[in-house]
Amino acid sequence: MDRVDIAIIGSGPAGISAAVNAKIRNKSFLLFGRKELSHKVNISKEIRNYIGFPSVSGKELNERFAAHLRDMEIEITEETITGIYNMGKYFMLLADQKVFEATTVIIAIGAETVKPLPGERELLGKGVSYCATCDGNLFKGKTIAVFCDNESHEHEVNYLAELAKKVYYFPNFASTLSMPNVENTKSKIAKILGNSCVSDIELKDGTKITVDGVFFLKQAVAADVLLGKLETEGGHIVTDRRMQTNIKGCFACGDCTGAPYQIAKSVGEGNIALHSAISYLAEMGKKDDEFEDK
Amino acid sequence: MDRVDIAIIGSGPAGISAAVNAKIRNKSFLLFGRKELSHKVNISKEIRNYIGFPSVSGKELNERFAAHLRDMEIEITEETITGIYNMGKYFMLLADQKVFEATTVIIAIGAETVKPLPGERELLGKGVSYCATCDGNLFKGKTIAVFCDNESHEHEVNYLAELAKKVYYFPNFASTLSMPNVENTKSKIAKILGNSCVSDIELKDGTKITVDGVFFLKQAVAADVLLGKLETEGGHIVTDRRMQTNIKGCFACGDCTGAPYQIAKSVGEGNIALHSAISYLAEMGKKDDEFEDK
Repeated sequence: MDRVDIAIIGSGPAGISAAVNAKIRNKSFLLFGRKELSHKVNISKEIRNYIGFPSVSGKELNERFAAHLRDMEIEITEETITGIYNMGKYFMLLADQKVFEATTVIIAIGAETVKPLPGERELLGKGVSYCATCDGNLFKGKTIAVFCDNESHEHEVNYLAELAKKVYYFPNFASTLSMPNVENTKSKIAKILGNSCVSDIELKDGTKITVDGVFFLKQAVAADVLLGKLETEGGHIVTDRRMQTNIKGCFACGDCTGAPYQIAKSVGEGNIALHSAISYLAEMGKKDDEFEDK
Repeated sequence: MDRVDIAIIGSGPAGISAAVNAKIRNKSFLLFGRKELSHKVNISKEIRNYIGFPSVSGKELNERFAAHLRDMEIEITEETITGIYNMGKYFMLLADQKVFEATTVIIAIGAETVKPLPGERELLGKGVSYCATCDGNLFKGKTIAVFCDNESHEHEVNYLAELAKKVYYFPNFASTLSMPNVENTKSKIAKILGNSCVSDIELKDGTKITVDGVFFLKQAVAADVLLGKLETEGGHIVTDRRMQTNIKGCFACGDCTGAPYQIAKSVGEGNIALHSAISYLAEMGKKDDEFEDK
């Protein structure tokens, strides 16, 4: 597998801005996300402060962004990255059962998915999973809770329901999924309980449900779950002015770095993050050269 | 004179972005700059990385920005701010012979004017001036050098030539100004010399010319000359992630805060700076309330 210069995680305004600049600068890169682009932008009725567009709907702006990507022949890799591993000189990225490699990573996963639920992080791999394909089989004939943030992931709920005995389903949208062993639940998950492994979930209305596992099928996983040791503060990734995180070669931009949650901020930060990644790549290149000289 | 909430200095992408957000948030503000908007943007042949516009000329993008301002009924105050004074709870801004007051200041003056020439700062007020109207009379019958960065300021050169005995003229554009006592000089000013006051200028080609004064007629003056004690590094204004400078209530954004010199970065930073100014205004308001309670 080829290692790319830059892996951009997230196809919202920050990720798109980074990708467009990566293309212009002739870097090899992957843009992970969804062809629908940012859901948050898509549902915005009117945007008035992205200058150049005095008044535009989110849907229309996303269409303009998509046209920009098409015009530059930038493809979106439709995979949800569930884990990033810092290998020193590069990063390994996991998505379902695929593995990718990149010298630098730009995290642009938005704010919605930033804050994990109580228990989510602690019980990850102990009943909590982000990947139906990877972990579904472990819950054959068992009782599970499944959170799904987007219709485009619902086929995975289907798959899990085929395996599990019972699914308590928490869709974050108006779902029409109907299967005999799937119970569409109105309240939301508040906490995940369990010591060595998941035992129950507690809902916002106070109800407790005994489950063997909990799946979160979402656009992106919480930043510090995604990449261990990534410094966050109040759920947001900490960066400096160059969008550098505490991990060398890893940059972050857009809503996941904190307020103001604005398209303009995301676009600007995506641009900065990409330029910082390029500087980092250049420096890495120099070091490699030095090493070869010796 | 009414004190505005926010004075935005500079009408490039960063200043426009700040102004648009100030308007949406119903703040009183002044946007200082020129109706032609950013010269640097205007002369860009093709811009490909301001997402939403796959390929656009700088002129066209500026037209879109101007349309955005018109649509929101945002006026540009065509004054060059030559000095900002920190009055504790507010700022006083000088432009020619006018004075403005603002509770917060957002500096978005671009990068071109950031670095002063050797001697420029040291001899400011001792022969170096940024304002023909203010200081012209002091050089009646004397010999002066005049740098002018833009055609729209050339009427001030005219005025100075009417007063002075001799003008060494350094236009930063193809000037057609023709007056008997004006010598259009091909080389550029490299240094300003003098101890207690200006004695000579040294040109890039090494020539020395004896003068009594030097006028810099430009879009904006160097940041730390504009506002005393403003922290800069390598000519750029130092800010934190919220675009806050070392001076409370004073924010900076765009090229004047450093590389990458990109429209997207400027637009994003203008947005952040404005939101930080709003937070600051809210905090100031709270403090005033507390004070009134006591």
